[in-house]
Amino acid sequence: MVDVTAPPLSPTDRSTVRRHRDRQRADRAELHAVLDEALVAHVGRVVDGEPVVLPTLHARVGETLYLHGSSGAASLRGDEPVCVTVTIIDGLVYARRWFTQSANYRSAVVRGHARRVTDRDEALAAMRALVRQVAPGQEDHADPPSRKEMAATSIVALDLTEASVKARTGPPGDGDAVAAGDDRWAGVVGLATRVTGVTTCPALPEGTPVPAHVPTG
Amino acid sequence: MVDVTAPPLSPTDRSTVRRHRDRQRADRAELHAVLDEALVAHVGRVVDGEPVVLPTLHARVGETLYLHGSSGAASLRGDEPVCVTVTIIDGLVYARRWFTQSANYRSAVVRGHARRVTDRDEALAAMRALVRQVAPGQEDHADPPSRKEMAATSIVALDLTEASVKARTGPPGDGDAVAAGDDRWAGVVGLATRVTGVTTCPALPEGTPVPAHVPTG
Repeated sequence: MVDVTAPPLSPTDRSTVRRHRDRQRADRAELHAVLDEALVAHVGRVVDGEPVVLPTLHARVGETLYLHGSSGAASLRGDEPVCVTVTIIDGLVYARRWFTQSANYRSAVVRGHARRVTDRDEALAAMRALVRQVAPGQEDHADPPSRKEMAATSIVALDLTEASVKARTGPPGDGDAVAAGDDRWAGVVGLATRVTGVTTCPALPEGTPVPAHVPTG
Repeated sequence: MVDVTAPPLSPTDRSTVRRHRDRQRADRAELHAVLDEALVAHVGRVVDGEPVVLPTLHARVGETLYLHGSSGAASLRGDEPVCVTVTIIDGLVYARRWFTQSANYRSAVVRGHARRVTDRDEALAAMRALVRQVAPGQEDHADPPSRKEMAATSIVALDLTEASVKARTGPPGDGDAVAAGDDRWAGVVGLATRVTGVTTCPALPEGTPVPAHVPTG
């Protein structure tokens, strides 16, 4: 039975991976996982016929991706085609040849027509998700926006209809060199984003306790 | 005296930061530092009138940024306008309000006309830099490309002429809340990319020593 609420990925020709097809993932859960783990998205737009890519915070709610927009002239305002890409580097692949040197990664590419969120409830839910994306628990610790802050924030939505996920995992691709007598070391250096420490706001009294939801390392 | 080899950033109107102008950096050394530290770049292009953003490895040599291209139909081939953006997340800013919640980051945006590298020496130097960018030392440990591998690799170059750097540092912007009686914790969670471990290629004999240039954590 087909679950129409969660179709497999890449229904369109242009979202089909062409390079390294073996790296394409078809599971929508993998799309969600990559989007949910990444701390930053890169949003591409066409401005005066040329590409512009800017980083922004993002958050997923169901099958919708939300982005911080802006009222600024050069910024994302919705009602335009966008491409949102997030990439997580999981490791560096040390190979025996420059040609086979690589990285282990997961990346998601979402294309579609951005929509400015005008409904107050949807905007509030999106803002909550945007806070929670990078700071889980902080959405309850911090205050929701005032009416004035709501007006100064623009939220843009993008449906996860046209999306693809690509991933590379595993050892270097040139392991066959070993059988041919190449005994040089090769392998993968795993990478992850880690907490390096917590700095309390200098306006607060020394010793202000750090709440349990804040990661300290 | 003006050093014409290293002009200040943002000579053009369209590369002038419009949002959070206080975050714009004017020092070319900061552009170099961000590009040199980042492990992945996001390359924006216009394909059939719509934006496409794909991750790629990059490396800087002087005032030129090099990217891995591809001979694939939908991939970067040079001779087209591109926007290359790299972002490093340095921390998460836990504020007292959703509105002031933020991230500490450094990002570089480079725009220009991509050029396919056809000179063999320039291509080789770029490939060496691309290996070194993510795996310093590996460019000497691993073999340069064969003639066939050279032919299968396309390198694209972009001058760092039109570039901007934006950065946010420091505590939450709503520290004035403390004087008004708000004693909730706020602050910054520092983040960095760390080595989580090294996995030797399974084709190698157990105990193959990891060379000194490979980071092990």
